[in-house]
Amino acid sequence: MSHSANPLKIVVIGGTAAGPKAAAKARRMDEHALITLIQREPELSMASCGFPYYVGGTFDDRSLLICTPAGVVRNPTFFSKAKRIDALVETEAVAIDRNAKTVTYKHLPTGEINTIPYDRLVIATGATPIRPSVPGADLNGILTLHSMADADKLRSIRDAGQVKKAIIVGGGLIGFEVCEALHLANIETTVVEKTAQVLPFLDSDLALLVQNHVCEQGAHVITNNGVAEFIGESGHLTGVKLDDGSELPCELAVIAVGVRPNISLAVAAGLNIGTQGGIKVNSFMQTSDPDIYAVGDCIECTSLITGQAVRAPFGDLANLQGRVAGQNVIEPGSAEFPGITQTGICKIFDFTAGITGLSERQARALGFNEIETATIAGLDIPTFMNGKLLVSKLVAEKKTGRILGFQCVGSGDVSKRVAVVATAILGRLTVNDLANADLPYAPPYSLALDHVIVAAHVLENKLKGRMQGIVASEVKQKLDQGAPLFLIDTRNPDEFEELRLGIGEHLIPLGVLRDRLNELPSDKAAEIVVYCRISLRGYEAAALLQGYGWHNVKVLEGGLMAWPYPREK
Amino acid sequence: MSHSANPLKIVVIGGTAAGPKAAAKARRMDEHALITLIQREPELSMASCGFPYYVGGTFDDRSLLICTPAGVVRNPTFFSKAKRIDALVETEAVAIDRNAKTVTYKHLPTGEINTIPYDRLVIATGATPIRPSVPGADLNGILTLHSMADADKLRSIRDAGQVKKAIIVGGGLIGFEVCEALHLANIETTVVEKTAQVLPFLDSDLALLVQNHVCEQGAHVITNNGVAEFIGESGHLTGVKLDDGSELPCELAVIAVGVRPNISLAVAAGLNIGTQGGIKVNSFMQTSDPDIYAVGDCIECTSLITGQAVRAPFGDLANLQGRVAGQNVIEPGSAEFPGITQTGICKIFDFTAGITGLSERQARALGFNEIETATIAGLDIPTFMNGKLLVSKLVAEKKTGRILGFQCVGSGDVSKRVAVVATAILGRLTVNDLANADLPYAPPYSLALDHVIVAAHVLENKLKGRMQGIVASEVKQKLDQGAPLFLIDTRNPDEFEELRLGIGEHLIPLGVLRDRLNELPSDKAAEIVVYCRISLRGYEAAALLQGYGWHNVKVLEGGLMAWPYPREK
Repeated sequence: MSHSANPLKIVVIGGTAAGPKAAAKARRMDEHALITLIQREPELSMASCGFPYYVGGTFDDRSLLICTPAGVVRNPTFFSKAKRIDALVETEAVAIDRNAKTVTYKHLPTGEINTIPYDRLVIATGATPIRPSVPGADLNGILTLHSMADADKLRSIRDAGQVKKAIIVGGGLIGFEVCEALHLANIETTVVEKTAQVLPFLDSDLALLVQNHVCEQGAHVITNNGVAEFIGESGHLTGVKLDDGSELPCELAVIAVGVRPNISLAVAAGLNIGTQGGIKVNSFMQTSDPDIYAVGDCIECTSLITGQAVRAPFGDLANLQGRVAGQNVIEPGSAEFPGITQTGICKIFDFTAGITGLSERQARALGFNEIETATIAGLDIPTFMNGKLLVSKLVAEKKTGRILGFQCVGSGDVSKRVAVVATAILGRLTVNDLANADLPYAPPYSLALDHVIVAAHVLENKLKGRMQGIVASEVKQKLDQGAPLFLIDTRNPDEFEELRLGIGEHLIPLGVLRDRLNELPSDKAAEIVVYCRISLRGYEAAALLQGYGWHNVKVLEGGLMAWPYPREK
Repeated sequence: MSHSANPLKIVVIGGTAAGPKAAAKARRMDEHALITLIQREPELSMASCGFPYYVGGTFDDRSLLICTPAGVVRNPTFFSKAKRIDALVETEAVAIDRNAKTVTYKHLPTGEINTIPYDRLVIATGATPIRPSVPGADLNGILTLHSMADADKLRSIRDAGQVKKAIIVGGGLIGFEVCEALHLANIETTVVEKTAQVLPFLDSDLALLVQNHVCEQGAHVITNNGVAEFIGESGHLTGVKLDDGSELPCELAVIAVGVRPNISLAVAAGLNIGTQGGIKVNSFMQTSDPDIYAVGDCIECTSLITGQAVRAPFGDLANLQGRVAGQNVIEPGSAEFPGITQTGICKIFDFTAGITGLSERQARALGFNEIETATIAGLDIPTFMNGKLLVSKLVAEKKTGRILGFQCVGSGDVSKRVAVVATAILGRLTVNDLANADLPYAPPYSLALDHVIVAAHVLENKLKGRMQGIVASEVKQKLDQGAPLFLIDTRNPDEFEELRLGIGEHLIPLGVLRDRLNELPSDKAAEIVVYCRISLRGYEAAALLQGYGWHNVKVLEGGLMAWPYPREK
């Protein structure tokens, strides 16, 4: 800790999340350091992730986005009084001189330029939304949801009630959060996604379940079709033209195709940039200049699964990184941020979509070829406690059983299950470890065997060769190709009457299957697919059939509940 | 796997949870084994943990407790048809002959006795509620909530609406579940606990917070006072006399002072019993006879934290153990249950109380002397999303930082946080690992820094010597002993006006503390306690004061929100 006679000079560039966290932590580490926070926007420490909920009307008091829990606005006076941090707002850092160890900044309203010395510097310059470069992109009515000003603008559009139709460009996490917010504002909203699938962090079957849910709620989703052009009149947006030539009328478009790290200051200062386009840092959050740290959306992190650099512009990580940098600027080397497991979650109407670690597609793309997966469906808590549906996919290494990833979607408590598996991945647990985990059980919170444990059981059964699985998209593909699948729905006739796949399946309830084996293909090598509502009975049926010699029996993983294609009602 | 010509003979004794799971898993492992399930009660596979919610009227359809999710009652016909398991109900196993490898059983309604051979046997005989041996214990109106018959009886009492007052003997998990159920049935309910504290798995401050909540809901709690005698008229309960001589009128008493493993069959068969009174098994769930397995409430497990034997009569563990035994009876040695982290959870009115691992008291009692703890209070999700309170205590080894336990209570989402730390303990994670965990963050699910991460941060600050803490009970004790504490509430005057501890504290808001240092004791060694609503500002104040030379400044951990003693409103 420095002596008050010669206090450390700390400068932090960026005042949204990672920056203020670093500054506040530095203050708690050293009461006598001189700490300056430089923020381009007028606000400080905004709860940016709360913007969609303000826009959508979940709450109406804007100040909740910039207040402490005690109700004090986090403005420069607050930073000065409570934290003795000199917070300069509407001020842009324009240059870093690493030799002189100074930062030059400009007060935007006045244009006044000043220079401040630092002993240690933290760069937390964040990221900027990417805007597609298509004709008409500068029309009025095309927004993003990134800054407080964006949130204010979208909220005022909601309150004015004039906009009738909106499109969201990009079917990612933010896109769907904004979609829900606008839908709640009674705006007819269409998400337009250029690729074949929304929510690219999920595997396709699960993404399609979420997409179905969004459409059931009355919003629209278009995939495989990008925005080719924004159309306007008198400078105002009136519609979009899509890649296929079709046109959609709309008065509002929100761009949500990702963000680009703000690295220009760092580049100009000659700091190393990583392979993923973010500022490169070590586990101390130190850049290539040992006196300069970088945190938040402008950097790249290390994946704890692959060891590779990844970008992860999330508010929680920004805070964790800020805390580590805040310690190191006062006591270099005193704290480390080891890396991330790539966890993300998103509320989408009554669904939640979450992931931690790698999807199957990501794992294969990264060269994990010897992997096994299990897709399951089930309730979060018992039927008698009004349990809700979860559909999940667990991904693990075949040889070691190490868990690589977990996706979960549905109306049930996704967040708990993703949090558990995120922690399991952090602990490098195997499927077998998770299969025997001692999780909190009581009916208000879980089934006797929690959803994640069942996922581990199914994956273990597959790893041990006790079950062969097939996922919905594989069945669909085989059927589309005319493969001679023998499909068995093992539910009861009344369940079948109510809802069924309608893909040529045979109804043979589990309870009579042993008596009706003569209805099955006589060829014991025939490809048979069995399922039920969630494929627990399907699994029992498969084990049974294997006991009678059929050796190509596959369980439709997750059963009817994980089937994302049209069903017969 | 056995050949159908000479099928394996599997006998399972016990049909509630662990037994049916073992039998069903064995069937899935081997379609041709002969599997017999012997069950003393008329029902099979009951959702026992759901009994309190049926009694309390959360749901009314009794069959939900014994149905599959598809609505089929799990009776002997179901077991025969769907699983080809011969389930004998109202049938008691009366002897095991290990030499002859047979089980003798009695059909209770007829008294008929038969003997069945086994190749491998699973004992899942469960446990029996302990009944205190005090006068009057056989009066009508004294019940337990353990069997389906108990649930039926208590539900009929609820439906009849005649009982006005009830007492619960025992302030544990089941006691409070029953308390809530009876309270919801409009019965004035008092929990009577012999020891000084309810919920013995928690440390006392957290247990007291739950007790306060129960009392705020209108139920009553008496501690430090056991039931000395049940009082009755004409054979019917009319009240209880307590150890201190006082009497409480009541027409109903429910005993919930724990369970005793049912080991008599195992003892008579000469199987080893463990130090904790349960049947001793290895990680394969094998007893001292390699062809006999035991699972569920009748056994003792291994703590993954201490390596010691512990009893853990919980439904989720019963299922996990049953699954392992079900594999091993078919393929010996094919599956292991490594042990438990002692996780438990309970809904108590609008609160949840959960724990995983060791409380501080348990840890110290087990000889973990070099430990550190952190008690925190905070919201589960942001204020603007209507976040609810959590109060937690994290326990870790000082030297290694290894997490030993986590308790959490409050109206917020306790279950997720307990599940995360249970997984962290399973992975032998340290406080630092948890402090940097990449958990799912979005405002509907978490603060930017989740509650468990904040707990890890506070504990890390303590481990690194950056913060000294003091818990509510220590402050209370010091004040009661007249210690000269200088107490500072660092909140704003309006917050202070609304609610305060009223224990002689000085109101010095954090924002003016630097200007008012002259009001503090001039002795820099004076014991100063600082706090705020949740003690985040308290922590900042402590760091500040340390910066000005006061070196005996302690943060009241969890602040006002974790203070379980009376406060001034």
